Amino acid sequence: MTDLKEGVCLKGFWLNHEHCCWKAETPFENRDTCSDWRIWSQLIIGTTEGAFAYILNYFMYVIWALLFSLLAVSLVKGFAPYACGSGIPEIKTILSGFIIRGYLGKWTLIIKTITLVLAVSSGLSLGKEGPLVHVACCCGNILCHLFIKYRKNEAKRREVLSAAAAAGVSVAFGAPIGGVLFSLEEVSYYFPLKTLWRSFFAALVAAFTLRSINPFGNSRLVLFYVEFHTPWHLLELVPFILLGIFGGLWGAFFIRSNIAWCRRRKTTKLGRYPVLEVLVVTAVTAILAFPNEYTRMSTSELISELFNDCGILDYSKLCEYVSDFNSTKGDDLPDRAAGPGVYTAMWQLALALILKVFITIFTFGMKVPSGLFIPSMAVGAIVGRLLGVGMEQLAYYHHDWTIFSGWCSQGADCITPGLYAMVGAAACLGGVTRMTVSLVVIMFELTGGLEYIVPLMAAAMTSKWVADAIGREGIYDAHIRLNGYPFLEAKEEFSHKTLAMDVMRPRRNDPPLTVITQDSMTVEDVEVIINETTYSGYPVVVSRESQRLVGFVLRRDLIISIENARKKQDGIVSTSIIYFTDHSPPLPPSSPSMLKLRSILDLSPFTVTDQTPMEIVVDIFRKLGLRQCLVTHNGKLLGIITKKDVLKHIAQMANQDPDSILFN
Amino acid sequence: MTDLKEGVCLKGFWLNHEHCCWKAETPFENRDTCSDWRIWSQLIIGTTEGAFAYILNYFMYVIWALLFSLLAVSLVKGFAPYACGSGIPEIKTILSGFIIRGYLGKWTLIIKTITLVLAVSSGLSLGKEGPLVHVACCCGNILCHLFIKYRKNEAKRREVLSAAAAAGVSVAFGAPIGGVLFSLEEVSYYFPLKTLWRSFFAALVAAFTLRSINPFGNSRLVLFYVEFHTPWHLLELVPFILLGIFGGLWGAFFIRSNIAWCRRRKTTKLGRYPVLEVLVVTAVTAILAFPNEYTRMSTSELISELFNDCGILDYSKLCEYVSDFNSTKGDDLPDRAAGPGVYTAMWQLALALILKVFITIFTFGMKVPSGLFIPSMAVGAIVGRLLGVGMEQLAYYHHDWTIFSGWCSQGADCITPGLYAMVGAAACLGGVTRMTVSLVVIMFELTGGLEYIVPLMAAAMTSKWVADAIGREGIYDAHIRLNGYPFLEAKEEFSHKTLAMDVMRPRRNDPPLTVITQDSMTVEDVEVIINETTYSGYPVVVSRESQRLVGFVLRRDLIISIENARKKQDGIVSTSIIYFTDHSPPLPPSSPSMLKLRSILDLSPFTVTDQTPMEIVVDIFRKLGLRQCLVTHNGKLLGIITKKDVLKHIAQMANQDPDSILFN
Repeated sequence: MTDLKEGVCLKGFWLNHEHCCWKAETPFENRDTCSDWRIWSQLIIGTTEGAFAYILNYFMYVIWALLFSLLAVSLVKGFAPYACGSGIPEIKTILSGFIIRGYLGKWTLIIKTITLVLAVSSGLSLGKEGPLVHVACCCGNILCHLFIKYRKNEAKRREVLSAAAAAGVSVAFGAPIGGVLFSLEEVSYYFPLKTLWRSFFAALVAAFTLRSINPFGNSRLVLFYVEFHTPWHLLELVPFILLGIFGGLWGAFFIRSNIAWCRRRKTTKLGRYPVLEVLVVTAVTAILAFPNEYTRMSTSELISELFNDCGILDYSKLCEYVSDFNSTKGDDLPDRAAGPGVYTAMWQLALALILKVFITIFTFGMKVPSGLFIPSMAVGAIVGRLLGVGMEQLAYYHHDWTIFSGWCSQGADCITPGLYAMVGAAACLGGVTRMTVSLVVIMFELTGGLEYIVPLMAAAMTSKWVADAIGREGIYDAHIRLNGYPFLEAKEEFSHKTLAMDVMRPRRNDPPLTVITQDSMTVEDVEVIINETTYSGYPVVVSRESQRLVGFVLRRDLIISIENARKKQDGIVSTSIIYFTDHSPPLPPSSPSMLKLRSILDLSPFTVTDQTPMEIVVDIFRKLGLRQCLVTHNGKLLGIITKKDVLKHIAQMANQDPDSILFN
Repeated sequence: MTDLKEGVCLKGFWLNHEHCCWKAETPFENRDTCSDWRIWSQLIIGTTEGAFAYILNYFMYVIWALLFSLLAVSLVKGFAPYACGSGIPEIKTILSGFIIRGYLGKWTLIIKTITLVLAVSSGLSLGKEGPLVHVACCCGNILCHLFIKYRKNEAKRREVLSAAAAAGVSVAFGAPIGGVLFSLEEVSYYFPLKTLWRSFFAALVAAFTLRSINPFGNSRLVLFYVEFHTPWHLLELVPFILLGIFGGLWGAFFIRSNIAWCRRRKTTKLGRYPVLEVLVVTAVTAILAFPNEYTRMSTSELISELFNDCGILDYSKLCEYVSDFNSTKGDDLPDRAAGPGVYTAMWQLALALILKVFITIFTFGMKVPSGLFIPSMAVGAIVGRLLGVGMEQLAYYHHDWTIFSGWCSQGADCITPGLYAMVGAAACLGGVTRMTVSLVVIMFELTGGLEYIVPLMAAAMTSKWVADAIGREGIYDAHIRLNGYPFLEAKEEFSHKTLAMDVMRPRRNDPPLTVITQDSMTVEDVEVIINETTYSGYPVVVSRESQRLVGFVLRRDLIISIENARKKQDGIVSTSIIYFTDHSPPLPPSSPSMLKLRSILDLSPFTVTDQTPMEIVVDIFRKLGLRQCLVTHNGKLLGIITKKDVLKHIAQMANQDPDSILFN
């Protein structure tokens, strides 16, 4: 569909340019111009020459782009509003224990699958990786409904989702190990070893299925297979670290700008016209992209070309070097002087860079499925390739400089610009997402470049440091905060000296905590409490005087039980006494019959003492995934701390507005 | 030193065979016989021919082996008894919160480093990887002492140890990512994301340092670099899974036999003669190993040779195929008929396999540093290579069989025996250690064979399944249980329906829990309690009647505080009342002065109710790394559950002897 924007294949409109010309008997150099593939102007007015043909092609390109994106945004808006975006912030939130109904449902699955294809082919600056993780999680969630064990158990279902996320990345990149690590590092909240092992299995099956389908026709799983012939030199770490710094700066810049724009969309009128917004961005992208061949091609093709090391058989502009065939031995080309093609390519790449940098800010967060991996990698790969070619030419013309002496003599192949592109891509992706181990693993699973772990690691680290120095949050965490999801960040340490008593409710001057006694309250008393408060649960104590904690009862269970009892059980009236005790005393015959509710009482509520440091309380909330925790002093119930209280307290301590936790 | 067993280099005794002959102007085929390298018989009696020369070489080989191992075991026994074994079970236990004094000290570091070299060069069937992890953890622990932040904080120090373990594997295998994952999957107990990120940094620096030193002289980090030219076929998964099954069976067999032997050593007289044991095993190994060239060479060399794909330039016996040079194109050799050399090699490898399988059982656990990675990989690699050559010959002679049709025509290169060796090595290593993701990553970092993720994953999975079906524990867990370390396994779910009240002490008919009251006990009362019980801490309650919990005080702190007070504080006598309260009442002037001990009271002890399911209690102990937890009922203190109680209960529920948790 991406190629439909440029032309059509006469053998079948569903064939792309490459597959259309696959078996044509044209010589290798002219493989791009086979007779079956017709550019639009060729098909309509019979020529590809002249200004009119160019304008016609331009027009068709923009029209197709608009058509695809209009279809995509309409489907999303009409059928599944949750299908937009990358989905990773929401999946992180869901895995941390929050429930968003319908977010992983079948409509989201169907619509996201279709619109993802449309969005990618419309030529917008977005990728398919994040949305594929969301799609995989939808599949996992739907499959869970088939098994009672998983349908009934939230925790087990979250483990399935962790494994699904791994499988999603495994398929998106052909990177099974990277997928498992991505799920561990970026997506999952709580990742026990048995989940690691199950995710590994899911990723294996996913990779195996992909291998059986053989989508790239070359028995390889990897998307951008590269084979470099030259080892890197220690001194090259300097440019690699420079790329890391750029990646960090770009990541921080992108996150700030994107969040600012998304906040604007949330708070101003802009948010009311999602279709118009998508169409405008698509039009701008298409109009600016068409004249430059590096933006006109799909972003994956661009990355693939940038990663590629120029061989003898490469005829792309990026490989137009002044060849000196005397010094060529076998496949190993020495560093050569750049030809005019390379210089043109440099300019075009620089322009492409500017376009990608700015348009991605406006694209990510629109009402279409949109991933960030591919655009980030493209930005990094362009910068890396530019730097790589620069280094190469420097080494070629100035191989007598001291820094090159000893490892880069004349006629040697010392600099591989493709490697710089790879390192740059890793750096930018790291700056945006703040991944470390998973990033490096994905990068080398993606390219097969196992020799280059150290450069990739160095760039990923630098990029994370630089970006963290500017702003602590990765793009997904930033979007979680923007949307006000109740997500308790597990990465940062809470190191303030506050105590549980400073955070619990009721505060010092508030009325005392609303409690229910175990054997002295009537149905009416409890109903008054339910109506007057909005808490989701109430502690049950021995008596108001002793305040000794017995258990915790959920509002929902209380309402349902009382309702049922009033309907079905004889003699339950407003003055009936509710018993939460194991044994109830014999009642005088005149009194109304009693309501026994021990079965709905949670007898093991979580407690901490009022003197517990908040550092430990935060740790307990994170590790045990609690929603609330009761606070006691010398065995007496004093108050309650909810997840919301913890989140607000953390925000307050970090000098942020505690009310930014919106829970909307 | 390994090569010293065979001969000596005249240019310098510290040079090994390969380095000695590095620059000799001998032709490529004869590189093994340069003039500077003298086999012992050559040096002593001037010839390498004849029975006497052979016997002399044999004798020297055994003597050197005995010398090295004697030195190793004497040093371990004399200076650092903790330097023996692989150290990984102990490090796992330490990371789970148990303290073994001196285990990570400087003497262990020094002696283990020296004796590891000796043990490996003695030709025993052991590897250097596990001990290197121990050595790295010693370094980490010693460095911790330099910084107050780490010296004072156990939890922080454990994070450093996790990172050190990653660095250790990173150096041992040249596998930085594999190291991080090994630390995550196998070694660390609690591995938060920030540890992941720090381990990654440590592993990066380790890999970078290794790369700068360039130990293999080829700018590569990897130990056994292989480059295969043929993609694998889906049908080959059948033999790969067979290898997985073998790996699992071998792993389970090895663990059972090794544990049985180690238990025998622990319980019988055998354990009293560690030096003799090491010498006997070394002598047996050396005597049986010398006649077979595949056992005479070092195990790493053997693995390297088994992984290698035969090229045109390989002159080893394993590559003695009947060459048909007409069908050879470039580097790609088609499958060929095996020559006599291959058949000889097969027999020798089969014998080597038998030796390795049995001798490793007796070697692992002796009083010398010994890793398991290399021997396990060797066993798997031999079986894999045998199967690979078998498959290759099958495909060569029967390429008309249906199973080969379509992918293995005559003259094609369809089977790569080296790949089978690689898969076999992964399967056996997986069977012994039960690693999954880290194993696959280590294997492909080790070999550079990124294309073979799916075969490696399939073999690792099968092997884990098969081995788990026979016995749940990996070798490290089995050794932890053998030694009775208090290690709370985090991998298995506890799914029994018992409650906290079933596990807590005191039991139903026992005397009540020993408690201290907050404001009514005298110094003497407390001293009586300390002398009469051996608990490591006591709960403090409001009063004996109310039993409402105030806090928890450690025995050690109590003893020190009372001692200090008696010495330094005026008026503290046996009848002085100890106050744990915030404010103490005014005392009548006649009474002895009081002792205020609120400062040593832990005001936030961990509590659960008696009705809490043990499933949750076990989870809390694991995730929060607790040592004890108090049990309450309706706000009153009932009992206490210690880590030991939890471990005993788990053993009991699994129908094991609860007293096998020895804590020795």
